[in-house]
Amino acid sequence: MRISELSAQSGVTVPTIKYYLREGLLPEGERSAPTQAAYGSLHVQRLGVIRALLDAGVSVAETRRVLATLDAPPGSAHELLGAAHAAITRPVDEGVDLTEAERLVEGLGWKPGTCDPDVLGDVARALDGLERAGFTVPDGVLPVYLQSIRVIADAEIAATPSDSAEAAVRYVVLGSVLVEPLLLALRRVAEQVASAERFGGTKTGD
Amino acid sequence: MRISELSAQSGVTVPTIKYYLREGLLPEGERSAPTQAAYGSLHVQRLGVIRALLDAGVSVAETRRVLATLDAPPGSAHELLGAAHAAITRPVDEGVDLTEAERLVEGLGWKPGTCDPDVLGDVARALDGLERAGFTVPDGVLPVYLQSIRVIADAEIAATPSDSAEAAVRYVVLGSVLVEPLLLALRRVAEQVASAERFGGTKTGD
Repeated sequence: MRISELSAQSGVTVPTIKYYLREGLLPEGERSAPTQAAYGSLHVQRLGVIRALLDAGVSVAETRRVLATLDAPPGSAHELLGAAHAAITRPVDEGVDLTEAERLVEGLGWKPGTCDPDVLGDVARALDGLERAGFTVPDGVLPVYLQSIRVIADAEIAATPSDSAEAAVRYVVLGSVLVEPLLLALRRVAEQVASAERFGGTKTGD
Repeated sequence: MRISELSAQSGVTVPTIKYYLREGLLPEGERSAPTQAAYGSLHVQRLGVIRALLDAGVSVAETRRVLATLDAPPGSAHELLGAAHAAITRPVDEGVDLTEAERLVEGLGWKPGTCDPDVLGDVARALDGLERAGFTVPDGVLPVYLQSIRVIADAEIAATPSDSAEAAVRYVVLGSVLVEPLLLALRRVAEQVASAERFGGTKTGD
């Protein structure tokens, strides 16, 4: 199909498609004439993935890395997850002290060598942010975070498709990244529900 | 203290402090001379909160609204949580169908009227993103999300401080927003730990 039809099928405007082509997010179509290229259903699918990643707050550079992981996945399912996380994780800053982060994630069953250091750096950065704001997670809440998050991760990893490598790649890469906005939105709803049940009163306006 | 000392104590540069003053994030100091203002420990504290919010990915406009909620909190603890969420939630788009989101959050104990519609709009947007990417959360995983997230929210709301209104405000507003990066980082670590346990192999490089 031509770019105009690709636009119609995907709901993405032609200038935006051209931008994705320039940024290397979308592979070039097959050249059918000097000024014309042909696109296929893989381009439609890829546009859906690009939009979903960008809408989830993933940057253009990170999206490019996530797509590269999808296109050329590393050998094992475990390495794949590491590559997906690396694509969306800022490298850990030189000289950052990971001791506190490591002590915390021991509560998730973490042992040295089971996890990419950049991801530990994210934990350290989040703890820093809380400290700078003078915010302390209550003692009783932190163990609940660790237990519940571990339950979530176990269920996710156990559900990795085993029928095809391609399905496993999609599941691990997209599931890890795209589910984040859903979990945060569900937490806000759950907090409001729990708060309504505990403190009473309903929100006006709905 | 002068602005130079506020900078030294907070670790925020003078030009950045001036930017926060212009943006209305930081209240003006007490005018001590036509070209000089005096700042106090509340300014140091406030700078810590501003940095933590911005570092957590909250926009300048959202940070302004979160701070306004901290400064002039609504009456009840439940309304407060709604205001905190509203400050960081994009208003729900006109005409968005919330049916699927509502059906999902029933699994959190949601009933009509217990939750701000904008927060439901976030759930709908997250579900849209997954659908556009052609990603389906496996049947067995979704109930685990709902149960675990509800367990987390219950623990958080139960730990709301009751000793002072100010402490409750800080806890609800900052706890809801600032803990998000921590939970996402913990999930990535937990996924890698669960994946290492299930598929074996350790990451190289750590």
